[in-house]
Amino acid sequence: MENKILKIGLPKGSLQETTIKLFKKAGYNIHVSPRSYYPVFDDDEISSMLIRAQEVPRYVEEGYLDCGLTGYDWILEQNAEVVEVAELRYAKEGFRPVKWVIAVPEDSPIKKLEDLQGKKIATELVAYTKRYLKSKGIKAEVDFSWGATEVKPPYLADAIVDLTETGSSLRANKLRIIETILESTTRFIANKSAWRDAWKKKKMLNIAMLLQGALTAESKVGLKMNVPKDSLKRVLSLLNSLHSPTISQLYDENWYALEVIIDEKKVRELLPKLKDAGASGFVEYPLNKVIP
Amino acid sequence: MENKILKIGLPKGSLQETTIKLFKKAGYNIHVSPRSYYPVFDDDEISSMLIRAQEVPRYVEEGYLDCGLTGYDWILEQNAEVVEVAELRYAKEGFRPVKWVIAVPEDSPIKKLEDLQGKKIATELVAYTKRYLKSKGIKAEVDFSWGATEVKPPYLADAIVDLTETGSSLRANKLRIIETILESTTRFIANKSAWRDAWKKKKMLNIAMLLQGALTAESKVGLKMNVPKDSLKRVLSLLNSLHSPTISQLYDENWYALEVIIDEKKVRELLPKLKDAGASGFVEYPLNKVIP
Amino acid sequence: MENKILKIGLPKGSLQETTIKLFKKAGYNIHVSPRSYYPVFDDDEISSMLIRAQEVPRYVEEGYLDCGLTGYDWILEQNAEVVEVAELRYAKEGFRPVKWVIAVPEDSPIKKLEDLQGKKIATELVAYTKRYLKSKGIKAEVDFSWGATEVKPPYLADAIVDLTETGSSLRANKLRIIETILESTTRFIANKSAWRDAWKKKKMLNIAMLLQGALTAESKVGLKMNVPKDSLKRVLSLLNSLHSPTISQLYDENWYALEVIIDEKKVRELLPKLKDAGASGFVEYPLNKVIP
Amino acid sequence: MENKILKIGLPKGSLQETTIKLFKKAGYNIHVSPRSYYPVFDDDEISSMLIRAQEVPRYVEEGYLDCGLTGYDWILEQNAEVVEVAELRYAKEGFRPVKWVIAVPEDSPIKKLEDLQGKKIATELVAYTKRYLKSKGIKAEVDFSWGATEVKPPYLADAIVDLTETGSSLRANKLRIIETILESTTRFIANKSAWRDAWKKKKMLNIAMLLQGALTAESKVGLKMNVPKDSLKRVLSLLNSLHSPTISQLYDENWYALEVIIDEKKVRELLPKLKDAGASGFVEYPLNKVIP
Amino acid sequence: MENKILKIGLPKGSLQETTIKLFKKAGYNIHVSPRSYYPVFDDDEISSMLIRAQEVPRYVEEGYLDCGLTGYDWILEQNAEVVEVAELRYAKEGFRPVKWVIAVPEDSPIKKLEDLQGKKIATELVAYTKRYLKSKGIKAEVDFSWGATEVKPPYLADAIVDLTETGSSLRANKLRIIETILESTTRFIANKSAWRDAWKKKKMLNIAMLLQGALTAESKVGLKMNVPKDSLKRVLSLLNSLHSPTISQLYDENWYALEVIIDEKKVRELLPKLKDAGASGFVEYPLNKVIP
Amino acid sequence: MENKILKIGLPKGSLQETTIKLFKKAGYNIHVSPRSYYPVFDDDEISSMLIRAQEVPRYVEEGYLDCGLTGYDWILEQNAEVVEVAELRYAKEGFRPVKWVIAVPEDSPIKKLEDLQGKKIATELVAYTKRYLKSKGIKAEVDFSWGATEVKPPYLADAIVDLTETGSSLRANKLRIIETILESTTRFIANKSAWRDAWKKKKMLNIAMLLQGALTAESKVGLKMNVPKDSLKRVLSLLNSLHSPTISQLYDENWYALEVIIDEKKVRELLPKLKDAGASGFVEYPLNKVIP
Repeated sequence: MENKILKIGLPKGSLQETTIKLFKKAGYNIHVSPRSYYPVFDDDEISSMLIRAQEVPRYVEEGYLDCGLTGYDWILEQNAEVVEVAELRYAKEGFRPVKWVIAVPEDSPIKKLEDLQGKKIATELVAYTKRYLKSKGIKAEVDFSWGATEVKPPYLADAIVDLTETGSSLRANKLRIIETILESTTRFIANKSAWRDAWKKKKMLNIAMLLQGALTAESKVGLKMNVPKDSLKRVLSLLNSLHSPTISQLYDENWYALEVIIDEKKVRELLPKLKDAGASGFVEYPLNKVIP
Repeated sequence: MENKILKIGLPKGSLQETTIKLFKKAGYNIHVSPRSYYPVFDDDEISSMLIRAQEVPRYVEEGYLDCGLTGYDWILEQNAEVVEVAELRYAKEGFRPVKWVIAVPEDSPIKKLEDLQGKKIATELVAYTKRYLKSKGIKAEVDFSWGATEVKPPYLADAIVDLTETGSSLRANKLRIIETILESTTRFIANKSAWRDAWKKKKMLNIAMLLQGALTAESKVGLKMNVPKDSLKRVLSLLNSLHSPTISQLYDENWYALEVIIDEKKVRELLPKLKDAGASGFVEYPLNKVIP
Repeated sequence: MENKILKIGLPKGSLQETTIKLFKKAGYNIHVSPRSYYPVFDDDEISSMLIRAQEVPRYVEEGYLDCGLTGYDWILEQNAEVVEVAELRYAKEGFRPVKWVIAVPEDSPIKKLEDLQGKKIATELVAYTKRYLKSKGIKAEVDFSWGATEVKPPYLADAIVDLTETGSSLRANKLRIIETILESTTRFIANKSAWRDAWKKKKMLNIAMLLQGALTAESKVGLKMNVPKDSLKRVLSLLNSLHSPTISQLYDENWYALEVIIDEKKVRELLPKLKDAGASGFVEYPLNKVIP
Repeated sequence: MENKILKIGLPKGSLQETTIKLFKKAGYNIHVSPRSYYPVFDDDEISSMLIRAQEVPRYVEEGYLDCGLTGYDWILEQNAEVVEVAELRYAKEGFRPVKWVIAVPEDSPIKKLEDLQGKKIATELVAYTKRYLKSKGIKAEVDFSWGATEVKPPYLADAIVDLTETGSSLRANKLRIIETILESTTRFIANKSAWRDAWKKKKMLNIAMLLQGALTAESKVGLKMNVPKDSLKRVLSLLNSLHSPTISQLYDENWYALEVIIDEKKVRELLPKLKDAGASGFVEYPLNKVIP
Repeated sequence: MENKILKIGLPKGSLQETTIKLFKKAGYNIHVSPRSYYPVFDDDEISSMLIRAQEVPRYVEEGYLDCGLTGYDWILEQNAEVVEVAELRYAKEGFRPVKWVIAVPEDSPIKKLEDLQGKKIATELVAYTKRYLKSKGIKAEVDFSWGATEVKPPYLADAIVDLTETGSSLRANKLRIIETILESTTRFIANKSAWRDAWKKKKMLNIAMLLQGALTAESKVGLKMNVPKDSLKRVLSLLNSLHSPTISQLYDENWYALEVIIDEKKVRELLPKLKDAGASGFVEYPLNKVIP
Repeated sequence: MENKILKIGLPKGSLQETTIKLFKKAGYNIHVSPRSYYPVFDDDEISSMLIRAQEVPRYVEEGYLDCGLTGYDWILEQNAEVVEVAELRYAKEGFRPVKWVIAVPEDSPIKKLEDLQGKKIATELVAYTKRYLKSKGIKAEVDFSWGATEVKPPYLADAIVDLTETGSSLRANKLRIIETILESTTRFIANKSAWRDAWKKKKMLNIAMLLQGALTAESKVGLKMNVPKDSLKRVLSLLNSLHSPTISQLYDENWYALEVIIDEKKVRELLPKLKDAGASGFVEYPLNKVIP
């Protein structure tokens, strides 16, 4: 029987480095030679290709690729008919979504969506923007922008639709946001007929599970502590939102060892309370993967 | 009377640095703040803007800008109706044209233009490519490529139309050139109605002259030499292709000083001949501008 | 009720990067925009500001800030009346104190503190140096040095008081240390009246606890091992300096699993002894926080 | 009694950084001043020196050093009589061996080893290459190459013996491999008489154990999971190749906690199977050292 | 007779690189070893030292140095009694003065100098600022700022006195300039008694002349052109502001060769006029030094 | 008739960049692709190859190359029988020779050459060192050093023979120079039989002339000045060491224009004297080539 292969498209550019690192944490080492567009997985059943995020949806939809990672924004822009295998909560600049916003010059008379009627809008996201405006009953000229979109108002456009993370680039160009039209994270998408292939579907689901496990671990830590017998109840009640902490008996029989997996952010609030409740000997350690 | 202003578009990206340097040599200091798209000229009559080369033709044609610098390729791609004020012989990677070529995988059955009939071609230069193929009677699917075009054959396209300088990137991707469809250099273009404005036309012609002068100086040097009276004729005959060298009498009356402006490349061949002909005391020096 | 805010000063410059990383390990993500001096905590109850370490004590003392991190040296230099919430054992170049030393040219006749009588001393730490010398009964001219202090002897000063880590910069300038006058680490300091505010005090103590926990974890690791029943006593005696290791029964009932938190440096000595005592299956893992 | 010292040679150059990091993970902090060749260990019983990998075998053999780390290739090249304390599976470019291969131009008539008879071979590994060829009954001229060996064929040599990792540098120079003559990893070697010194031998064995422990941890992870009582047998059978996983009772008595140390690469295959078998709540965490 | 030595102080930091380059153009090669503060001139009669610009005036005044280069701002701040040998028109960021300005938050009620009465001002230029305010009859608290001065208003200061070039850093911190209190360029200063030493004075004047010559050449170019006999008068009238252009007869007797030294900036305006007047064959070339 | 080709070897490594630049100034543009060892000249009659300086003499001697550039040190080390076409006064670190010196630890009892009898010397220049010592009647063990030679004394060698420019690396390793055994610059060398080929010899001589011309121009400048009639004699006497300055009549008939080519270093001394003698209007300009 012939060896089966899953063809996967990886996003070249701003998502590339984070994606490669995420796969590594998930257990896949990917060797990317400088200047080559064919990263090599240490898994003979996977062949891969680096493609611009904008083009991944099209090539997955058309079946050139079985699956791929790309932004939700480009899936919508291409209006691609693909299967969304998993949402992966990271984007260009970290572990939170990016936003596409409509922005105008600070001193523009345009204050709300309706004011865009008949105006000229520059954007890289032409198709989605047109659909969005149409759905709101607004007619405007939407022009493709090759980049540096934020410099265009007020001379070359009345408004723009552009990507923003913190809004600082918009502020630096004296632009004002009037509406967020899309929040986008990375998606693992599949071609429809590849999805119907049992072997490929299983393979994709496993990859998705491992990627999710690695991504979840980014925001979680392991926390161990020692708890005296008579504090156990109070301590457990503080942890009650969490499923079944691991408890074991210490050598000194009056003490228990507790271990939980917890959001890193919650530690700073929970720890003083746990201490007040009688726990001590806290040890926090990093994680590679967390899979429920 | 109100102060007149010439609005000029400078190409952001690969042509930017060379363009700024060329203006500097031409006598215009341009201050480009990091993150600002409005370079400041030390000439109050000029306001400028950094715009992608691809977009300069459109904005000049529509009159948002009076004039601009961009590649000939993008003028053709946009099919823009603009005035070409001057050709400036530099491009992305130096002082020679870039080429757009049709390339296919080394082992592709496609050998000549005709073989492209019915094939799929990826390129950033969609409109020009379509017109070119049509003029040759060829029907093919021409798709827009967001970049990394050279990686697409053979899986994602049968052929590409891409920019090349030395061909090394094509070779690295095992592609074979089958035809050059466009050679491109930088052009200084003007909006048609700006060109009819006498003040603006005069201003643009002066800028073009100074840019040309700076560009010419890149490949030329000044060469001085001493020539004894009785060698003068022989030496001058070697220089005869050149218009009127400057000759002056040396303190020692049996010698003349000669000075010519000459292609730097010709010096290495001419100099041994001049020496044989009796000239000596050669001094070669660099130039900032050469204007006929 | 109005939202309470704790105003904290973070040291700009050599301590900055380590401080931000330490807060991150402690559980606080701090976003520092390039060119902004107002880092943003992911905790709405904290507002922060980047200030030179030299100025933190003054602004905390005067109440412009509730608290701040700075070097012990600058607290003494400013003679600031502030509360020391915690010592954090890191400094400019790592997890050990920096030293301020008096140094003279290698061939200087100055051999001991007393020889400085009537001499000229250059330093950035003028006030502390003056107080120190006065306490030893020595009168000398102490001049402020704007930097590059180590180049000043012998031409521009007889001696210097300067910061040193390994002494290599002093040796390179052919200087000899005659006395260490101050060892300095980072301190978390508070304004006196902020300290009397119960909410602020609680907040500061929590932050201090988490920072200490993160700092402690830098030098500690978790060590697990398997121990056969009849070796348990010997193994525990080797670990006896450590409080209550966590012990659990293995599936194979003749074995125990032991886990201790231990100085990373001690592992290399202890491990061969533990092995000799019968332990095996050692696993060492990294920690994020250790809080007693 | 006088303090004993172990003199160790560390490889300067391509192995240096990885070696220093490995020692750090093993528990030894090494301070390397820029421009100094005497790294300082935080262990008073060790003195060290940076020496080219090529020279380590010679200086260990002659007793200038008690021990050292170097490549197996250079031990063979120097034909050094030393004790191999441990193989450490890393090399110039990562955690796998490097290869020395015989390569010829792609279009060379030389197809196999025998065709090298009477040919000219350039290499940095002259002595080993000569011995190797002699053992195969081949006479050829083997010349020392100062570097850039891969550029020499076909003009300056008929064949080369050169280091390769992925073969990409050879391909770029249009060379074809005809035989691998040596695979090399890093070795911890000892001088013979130092090995007979009980104190030094014990010290070297401890260092080797810690280095091996750190190296093993590079490819392994800790994996914890929760298993319901009635799935325990199935889960354990999947893990049966592994020695004694640590099992403890959860607070909820129907569940066990399992913990294993496992090759990171195996996790991606094993995890879906473990999940199918009933395990859940997987947590994977990184390791510093693994010592059996 | 003993060899005489001139001791010169060079400004370490922001002025350093430009200063070294200027000396190089003036004919002095200065070798600056990394980490050494004693640059070596290729002139045995000069010994030099790198010192912070702030300290140069003091050490020149006190006679530790014979002369030095520093900013006019620091001479005034130190109130140093020194001889100004020459003004050199360059500063931190190029060939124009820097400005010290009083700035306040954009929305501050402080609108003019008088509004500073009783306010708190942070600055690195404490002494000069105090003198300036006093001369205007204003009493305010002027505090020394260790840096990052622009971040202080409004929380840590009401106003600042800070260095600005283009004002962009002030704008980024939302500050508004209310007055420029000092424009500063680099000065070549001498100690008073060194100035009375004939040998030193002569040496300093020569250095100053060469530095000025190199500095002048930065903004000037040589311009050659050919002029037909009957255009000479018109061309010369366009050049009349310039002293004695060099004129020589061309081989073709109806033509003259003209050569002038001219501000680079004027070329772009003058050249079209010269062309209209009949000149042609323009050649512009760069200069190293221009000394009247 | 077949096209003739000159094969030239260019030194890879420390001399490479300077050599390529020098050829460029000489009029040859050389395109060096990253990772390629075959630089392409813009002269079809030249083919070139990058080879380690150490190997150039051997390959020129053996006729694999017609000619090449390399250091005089490696010619002597290889004892190569080649023709020296030209000395080019540059080396590793600039436009002056490098030195090979014998150095010993500062506190070594070895004080002079004779003290090396029976000692162990490490060097990269084994063959030349052996010949040198033999010629002085000294027997010593000379071992090949793979690099980092300066770290070897006193533990691994008694003395070294190493390259030095300023001696700073030696001082940093506490070594003392006891003798300079070789001063080396770059040489243009030819194969003996290539030298007998008239076409190749002519080609090599032209290249040598142009390289020399470019190199000479590095240290020379053009100097123009105006001289009043009655000062001409005095000014000329100051310039008398220089051959025939170019003199022309100024428009103002009482003035002459003088122009000389002069060592850049002499300008700073000569200029004040020329000024005293009545000259003025000095203009110094840079040169590309100076060929007598």
